[in-house]
Amino acid sequence: MARPRTPLLDRERIVRSALRLVDEAGDLTIPALAGVLKVSPSALYHHVTGRAEIVALMRAELVRSIGERSLWDRPWDEALGGWARAYREAFAEHPGIIRLLATAPLAEPFMHELYERAVGTLEAAGFAPEDVMGMITALESFILGSALDLVAPAVMVDAVDRVATPRLADALAAVPAGRRRADQAFEVGLAALIAGYRTLLAAGRGRGGGAGDPISDQA
Amino acid sequence: MARPRTPLLDRERIVRSALRLVDEAGDLTIPALAGVLKVSPSALYHHVTGRAEIVALMRAELVRSIGERSLWDRPWDEALGGWARAYREAFAEHPGIIRLLATAPLAEPFMHELYERAVGTLEAAGFAPEDVMGMITALESFILGSALDLVAPAVMVDAVDRVATPRLADALAAVPAGRRRADQAFEVGLAALIAGYRTLLAAGRGRGGGAGDPISDQA
Repeated sequence: MARPRTPLLDRERIVRSALRLVDEAGDLTIPALAGVLKVSPSALYHHVTGRAEIVALMRAELVRSIGERSLWDRPWDEALGGWARAYREAFAEHPGIIRLLATAPLAEPFMHELYERAVGTLEAAGFAPEDVMGMITALESFILGSALDLVAPAVMVDAVDRVATPRLADALAAVPAGRRRADQAFEVGLAALIAGYRTLLAAGRGRGGGAGDPISDQA
Repeated sequence: MARPRTPLLDRERIVRSALRLVDEAGDLTIPALAGVLKVSPSALYHHVTGRAEIVALMRAELVRSIGERSLWDRPWDEALGGWARAYREAFAEHPGIIRLLATAPLAEPFMHELYERAVGTLEAAGFAPEDVMGMITALESFILGSALDLVAPAVMVDAVDRVATPRLADALAAVPAGRRRADQAFEVGLAALIAGYRTLLAAGRGRGGGAGDPISDQA
């Protein structure tokens, strides 16, 4: 008898169920995932080596839509901006996974290739090798926090008393409605981060630099 | 008979247990919290009006250490920097709560007072009322993402193949060890964000401005 074309359990089905589980439960365990899939934990181990591989597969699934290679051939500021926008959209669809992926080591070769391209683009633009990983990590922190904000309520600061806090009330009156609130905040921060990175170049903190900057020296 | 000095259930015990529960389980439900406290859900309702109030109490507990009023009397860049550092530390102690608080509406008067001071400091520095909420939200997104990065492994990008990804390998060799990896990335991003905000002032996007900036216009 012919085997069914779609096996009952395959890696694709495992990763889809794992994403759903983390979205709902906020964490991933092998017993919980086996329960969702209605299989024994040992059946899972026929397809994946363990929890770390499932996390890597989830990361691959999310990053697939972000990984467009040609992005990194563009000028560094456009490349970072385009990457940040795609990255935020992908993670906003799975907010429950943000904590998990933000705190699981990146050991996957496809992620290393992505970082290789990002590092190459930044170094070609003149950024110092000792700055680029910090720049990339800081941008990722901003993106992940922004993905959480994107799934926050459209009116995030609520029930403001105009008498007690008049300046806040005025500032909120200028905030766009609906999803545009989060979009505007994201674009303000993205533009500021990139403009701030540009000042590193202008201040001669490119290759061989490394002098302190006024902000962190003050503190 | 004298009543015990410490009641079996009080708001402080509720909020402490709620923080622990969210740290462990990633979410907060009344039945789960009642289970942890070994009381009935109805006993909880004698002390709090419901889940939203517990979330507000958790926020108050975390923000208490950040709220130092005099911070906002300092120059805007120092104030934002000091606030960001304290905020990140507080949230890094409870990474499980980040998603919950990032997506729960801010209706608490003590939070409104904090934002009132932040808005006042930024507007006094010359930032446009239509920009300040976006600036504050973007900084908070960066802080929350950075708090997650602070609880990530000290070696976050792992098992890199120097032949396949040589530039990444070199860039990683320049990354400081241990907790300083996350600290450096945070300071790079914080300095860049604040430098980027400063360019808004310099470009005449202060009060009455609002012209586009090169980054967001390009995209």
